[in-house]
Amino acid sequence: MESLGLQVSVDAMGNLRGSPINREIPRLLIGSHIDTVPNAGAYDGVLGVLLGLALVDACRPMELPFGIELMAFSEEEGVRFRLPFLGSRALAGDVNSRLLSVRDANGISMEEAIFAFGLNPQQMEEARLSDDTFAFLEFHIEQGPVLEKAGLPLAAVEAIAGQSRVTVVFVGSANHVGTTPMDLRRDALAAAAEWIIAVETFARAADGCVATVGRLQVLPGASNVVPGEVTASLDVRHASNAERKSATDFLLQRAQDICDRRELACSFRTDLEQSSVPMSPELVTAVEHAIAAAGVTPKRMVSGAGHDAMILAQVVPSAMIFLRSPGGISHHPDESVLVEDVEKAILAGINFLEHLARRQ
Amino acid sequence: MESLGLQVSVDAMGNLRGSPINREIPRLLIGSHIDTVPNAGAYDGVLGVLLGLALVDACRPMELPFGIELMAFSEEEGVRFRLPFLGSRALAGDVNSRLLSVRDANGISMEEAIFAFGLNPQQMEEARLSDDTFAFLEFHIEQGPVLEKAGLPLAAVEAIAGQSRVTVVFVGSANHVGTTPMDLRRDALAAAAEWIIAVETFARAADGCVATVGRLQVLPGASNVVPGEVTASLDVRHASNAERKSATDFLLQRAQDICDRRELACSFRTDLEQSSVPMSPELVTAVEHAIAAAGVTPKRMVSGAGHDAMILAQVVPSAMIFLRSPGGISHHPDESVLVEDVEKAILAGINFLEHLARRQ
Repeated sequence: MESLGLQVSVDAMGNLRGSPINREIPRLLIGSHIDTVPNAGAYDGVLGVLLGLALVDACRPMELPFGIELMAFSEEEGVRFRLPFLGSRALAGDVNSRLLSVRDANGISMEEAIFAFGLNPQQMEEARLSDDTFAFLEFHIEQGPVLEKAGLPLAAVEAIAGQSRVTVVFVGSANHVGTTPMDLRRDALAAAAEWIIAVETFARAADGCVATVGRLQVLPGASNVVPGEVTASLDVRHASNAERKSATDFLLQRAQDICDRRELACSFRTDLEQSSVPMSPELVTAVEHAIAAAGVTPKRMVSGAGHDAMILAQVVPSAMIFLRSPGGISHHPDESVLVEDVEKAILAGINFLEHLARRQ
Repeated sequence: MESLGLQVSVDAMGNLRGSPINREIPRLLIGSHIDTVPNAGAYDGVLGVLLGLALVDACRPMELPFGIELMAFSEEEGVRFRLPFLGSRALAGDVNSRLLSVRDANGISMEEAIFAFGLNPQQMEEARLSDDTFAFLEFHIEQGPVLEKAGLPLAAVEAIAGQSRVTVVFVGSANHVGTTPMDLRRDALAAAAEWIIAVETFARAADGCVATVGRLQVLPGASNVVPGEVTASLDVRHASNAERKSATDFLLQRAQDICDRRELACSFRTDLEQSSVPMSPELVTAVEHAIAAAGVTPKRMVSGAGHDAMILAQVVPSAMIFLRSPGGISHHPDESVLVEDVEKAILAGINFLEHLARRQ
């Protein structure tokens, strides 16, 4: 960053920032995050920061009518405090004392962790996005198999899907497997299995929806005891909030119906309700043109994963460019990108900067 | 036991034994186990030991031509080493160095555990049933709803159903739930769920068969990751060995078919193949008469649960008397018995002792 003439600083949430020296002209923010999950790969987040760096370098001869601020967001995954997007929330002015008092698994509060890192949480306001920032651009690996299946290197993200997360508990009756005839059982795992298939069947038929049961705890969990209680997680995602909510309601009603028919009890606890976030329609179109001008068939898609752009979109027009993920693999050491896709992404980025320069 | 004049000892497998002082006369063995499953009730096993104690007490004025050895078997359920009937296997002479080298979840071998408990596994041979033992009688709660449904307090057990236990592993692909479309998933939990329903549907339609998936482990087990691997237990029971084996083969083939269709891998590991065991026909008839003489309509039934009598029947003529289980509940804190049923059981037991005395 320094060798490219940027002024480097770390804000109170630990975001690494490279600001243009000339503070009078408007600013474009480019970046992504530099944290990732345990046992992850090398590209999730970091690639978006490096592509920003490449664009700052590439545009030096261009004499753009705006400056570029480069951002390496901290703590996007939320591993330590189980709360994602901490870095981008600081830019959006969405950090309050309640958030700072959240504690990690060792009982250390976020405020204490920030102090221990040598930063001052009382300077959090200074991390806010400057008023002269007119747009945000984030490059990110897709982390899924859609582009690979389509045979395309890049996509313009039009929205980030909303998420509902619900914990569902099935309560039947634990009994000895040898002595309880099939017709007298109230098997919590059989009920949960019927529901898991219902969730999969529904989501397969519903356009643009993914629904997943990823966690399942079976009690008492012995091979010779009919399961008495099962706790399951449900995760539902869709670009439309209304569709997501109606899908979630339908699936919980299915769980209730299955339990009623099998004479089981069930209960639900909502763990997360995250609305979908559209990217700026004007910038999505600009990204599509920029991708096409790089010689690539443009494609729009919805991101099923959350990103910092989801937070920034609430305070500034935002856009995202996805790069193909070989094998759809992410959050895994085998995560990768193709060199030629990265070249296309830089080309598309330069085209996007030129578009913004013409518009400015 | 001591107050009833029995000589108390603990053998090398941890069985608590009360032997008659007079070692010259032949012996009747009476007993059951004193271990149970986690979060269980108060009667499974223990009631059979206490009824033996009651019979030793009741027969003191009877001057029987045989002695009674009372047995509180250890480790019938097999919780720690996932291998049941350890106590009765010691009596049957079925403990070898391979069994003793089996390790628990913490890596401690059975041999080490026996030493740590203060016993000497090298004295295992001394735990064998003495040659002068001519019969074994076990009282046990039914642990199922059959007697309650029939409105009867007691039953003569004519056979113990065989069991097959198999571990089934479904291997798919763990992926990000938000970025992996439904049609590109290889969800190990969805495959397992489909199979669990197939197991239940099959057993409901098959006469005299019970089949259960009681244990299920889902990896990685996060709400936002498509399950990549599921390990499930299968337990199949039937009075007919041929029927049990064909049912087990059919259900494993179903797992394979489901995995083939979903492009998953699966593997099987047989944990237990226990043949069905008939009780001594002569003693079953004697038990029926003893029950009838106690003023109770006699009933014969097959036990779906395994019992120590299943092991003992291989080395000595054996019989079992079941007591009604209110609500069919067992392996649960609500497990119970009716006081009047216990009275009938003691009466039937005394009648059985008198029959043996006449026969001797």
